[in-house]
Amino acid sequence: MVRGRICRLLVRDVRFPTSLGGHGSDAMREAQREREHKQGELEREKQASCGAGSPMRRWIPGPWDHDLSRRQTLNDCATQHTDPDYSAAYVVLETDAEDGLKGYGLTFTLGKGTEVVVCAVNALAHHVLNKDLRDIVGDFRGFYRQLTSDGQLRWIGPEKGVVHLATAALLNAVWDLWAKQEGKPLWKLLVDMDPRELLSCIDFRYITDVLTEEEAYEILQKGQVGKKERGQMLMHGYPAYTTSCAWLGYSDDTLKQLCTEALKDGWTRFKVKVGADLQDDIRRCRLIRNMIGPEKTLMMDANQRWDVPEAVEWMSKLAEFKPLWIEEPTSPDDILGHAAISEALVPLGIGIATGEQCHNRVIFKQLLQAKALQFLQIDSCRLGSVNENLSVLLMAKKFEIPVCPHAGGVGLCELVQHLIIFDFISISASLENRMCEYVNHLHEHFRYPVVIKKASYMPPKDAGYSTEMKEESVKKHQYPHGEVWKKLLAAQEN
Amino acid sequence: MVRGRICRLLVRDVRFPTSLGGHGSDAMREAQREREHKQGELEREKQASCGAGSPMRRWIPGPWDHDLSRRQTLNDCATQHTDPDYSAAYVVLETDAEDGLKGYGLTFTLGKGTEVVVCAVNALAHHVLNKDLRDIVGDFRGFYRQLTSDGQLRWIGPEKGVVHLATAALLNAVWDLWAKQEGKPLWKLLVDMDPRELLSCIDFRYITDVLTEEEAYEILQKGQVGKKERGQMLMHGYPAYTTSCAWLGYSDDTLKQLCTEALKDGWTRFKVKVGADLQDDIRRCRLIRNMIGPEKTLMMDANQRWDVPEAVEWMSKLAEFKPLWIEEPTSPDDILGHAAISEALVPLGIGIATGEQCHNRVIFKQLLQAKALQFLQIDSCRLGSVNENLSVLLMAKKFEIPVCPHAGGVGLCELVQHLIIFDFISISASLENRMCEYVNHLHEHFRYPVVIKKASYMPPKDAGYSTEMKEESVKKHQYPHGEVWKKLLAAQEN
Repeated sequence: MVRGRICRLLVRDVRFPTSLGGHGSDAMREAQREREHKQGELEREKQASCGAGSPMRRWIPGPWDHDLSRRQTLNDCATQHTDPDYSAAYVVLETDAEDGLKGYGLTFTLGKGTEVVVCAVNALAHHVLNKDLRDIVGDFRGFYRQLTSDGQLRWIGPEKGVVHLATAALLNAVWDLWAKQEGKPLWKLLVDMDPRELLSCIDFRYITDVLTEEEAYEILQKGQVGKKERGQMLMHGYPAYTTSCAWLGYSDDTLKQLCTEALKDGWTRFKVKVGADLQDDIRRCRLIRNMIGPEKTLMMDANQRWDVPEAVEWMSKLAEFKPLWIEEPTSPDDILGHAAISEALVPLGIGIATGEQCHNRVIFKQLLQAKALQFLQIDSCRLGSVNENLSVLLMAKKFEIPVCPHAGGVGLCELVQHLIIFDFISISASLENRMCEYVNHLHEHFRYPVVIKKASYMPPKDAGYSTEMKEESVKKHQYPHGEVWKKLLAAQEN
Repeated sequence: MVRGRICRLLVRDVRFPTSLGGHGSDAMREAQREREHKQGELEREKQASCGAGSPMRRWIPGPWDHDLSRRQTLNDCATQHTDPDYSAAYVVLETDAEDGLKGYGLTFTLGKGTEVVVCAVNALAHHVLNKDLRDIVGDFRGFYRQLTSDGQLRWIGPEKGVVHLATAALLNAVWDLWAKQEGKPLWKLLVDMDPRELLSCIDFRYITDVLTEEEAYEILQKGQVGKKERGQMLMHGYPAYTTSCAWLGYSDDTLKQLCTEALKDGWTRFKVKVGADLQDDIRRCRLIRNMIGPEKTLMMDANQRWDVPEAVEWMSKLAEFKPLWIEEPTSPDDILGHAAISEALVPLGIGIATGEQCHNRVIFKQLLQAKALQFLQIDSCRLGSVNENLSVLLMAKKFEIPVCPHAGGVGLCELVQHLIIFDFISISASLENRMCEYVNHLHEHFRYPVVIKKASYMPPKDAGYSTEMKEESVKKHQYPHGEVWKKLLAAQEN
């Protein structure tokens, strides 16, 4: 079925000016921003799409804009992921096959820096161009290794940061193309592959001390039992939780309103951002817990805000609001730190969740070895695509740690739903303590957007990895020459 | 003394075609390469400089060259750091002060991918441009945090890979400029700073569970005692070891010849690359151990070649050659893996050394916490410059683990000598089990090259961080338009 030589590779820098709405804001806000809130200058903007008339607020420019002195004051405070412009390095693969099918892949970014990932995709492109798709998927492990072990590019990784994000974008496009050629949604392609074929996609390098290929095979063999029944269960969808109600950038009124609407829509699991100010967190958590009641699930997310001792201290004071987990309490690189926090907080009934910035399978391996997390959050765009995520899903199964994917941003929901649906059907075989993040932003730009019903992801039916954006959206949001950015940059000038 | 607003920032992609000589080759060589050796096709080339008449051998092109199909066969094997073209993203800072002094900084790369780091430097540039140098060094911790916590760029790190390498290049240039303005070599600038001033350069975020600012202060206060005497000791230089004799790319004859010469030059510590083929390693290690005798020091370096169980097994078979350490036995991200290897090999008399690809202080913190290494190898260009290295030197002191810097490549010896000399005078106060790597490549391109006497680094006397390259070298080696590359690319075409 698989066919064609990859004859064209395009990569584009696509940015959505979400910072204008305060969506996606997490962790410490600076005093100025805080004041803006209280003055009610920030009005609720539920939709991230930004027309020409939108207010220009604290938009931080990309590196193309060289009059930099004026803007220093906007940006000179230690903050994290405030004012993200949800963006993507967006890859399109074409083949010489006559079917006209293309592979679309992306990795998620926050605005500035997308051009750096684009540059890395170009640096890796020669590994993909002129390759026959049969040769790629016929030795997918070898192909993965080739990309991640390029003798020169490896130095600026390895398997982390920019080059690994670029690898993810490329491989996501390959998987999309493969699934399209097979005429199946990606999750179904994976579900239908036999265990040996699945394993042949995984690079076990650096994880054999925890998971050998034979152990992985046994896990997948066991997963064959009851597959069909689990597939049918998903007629009702895969459980989701929402992060859309409680970004740090939202006022209490916005928060209440969004929470009310979410409850009405059937949501039962809510995540709130914390870590900027303890009293503020207490107020916001109390507000949400009161609104959702004692039975529904509340999670908290600190986006790496704390050092280890601070995380324990802070969360001890939020324990009364009964969070299921605290997400990213500290540096994503700090395995032993997460283990220490976990040891302190699990007795208080709070689990540790992390993963969206864990840069490869070696970090996940150690988080599992060290009992550093109780919920493992894979990301479809930071790890080396499906290939590397397969290895993490299998390790999580071995340690019996539930996988609750990271999503949101742009496209992350579209992609990761495939992985978690496959995980349920073929690996974990359980829904206990499992759910997939959902954020209601930017889906309108995708050709096959997620479908949420009754707070659940409905399994995608279209062929591919749901990665394809609408061409019009891509054109409008290309940075810096798309229509949307031209207008914003012109407004900035005036 | 400090003066001037940074009014210009240039960054250049400078590459030396070292792959033509087999210098820097480590880990697995592919069968083809191996055959080339045996056929004697690879002649010894001690000097990395490459004239127009040099043989073109397996040169892997950068991404600018788009006829890619032909070269796939050269590059389709899982290898590590074979055929590096030692390179640098090279930053020049100019101020509006009338002294005409410039700051030079670099980060080391292996050829392809340098353009990606250059792109990241440009993305970070607005944090540096138009800043007053007094404001930068007056709140160096804040400035460090600003660079590493950029709300949008942080996502594609944080503090790892490409963006962190770019941060290093920028900050190295700032330190060079500062030291030049003070009229001191960097090590002396550091030695003369009082403890509080040194601490104000360090971001303690994510390491306070292991090292608080007060503990760091106490270490530095203790280090004040005997500083003058230690400064005088360094009249004889800081001990070095050589990696120049035993790259994997060298034939046995080359190896013998280089070893003989090194012994004649007074070298007493030698490092050999291992990990490609066990029988080959045994032969090469026996050869070297026989040549240097039982008293001299032999180290081994696997450049991340192995999984954890393999590392233990392999090194057990090389134990008879009495290596002081095995360097980088596995993934640089695998703290627990290094701890397991360490536990197995220390009883055999073999220590674990790692660090050249440890991407930030959080990883070093954990390696120390987990007793995962016996020798800590800082790198001047992968961590966030002097600032982050200071925190690692202090943590190493707390755990009483000797620091033995990584060097080589291009410029790494020039830079890191400053750090280790400062470490000896102001922090470690010991030479026991300590030495700094030395590789005799590419120093001729620097304006203030290292001076080695009797196998020791002589403390630099010129003001600055020894980062400045000769303008002629930079021009000739700029990629892809410098003279050297124009010729190579033209030869490639023919």
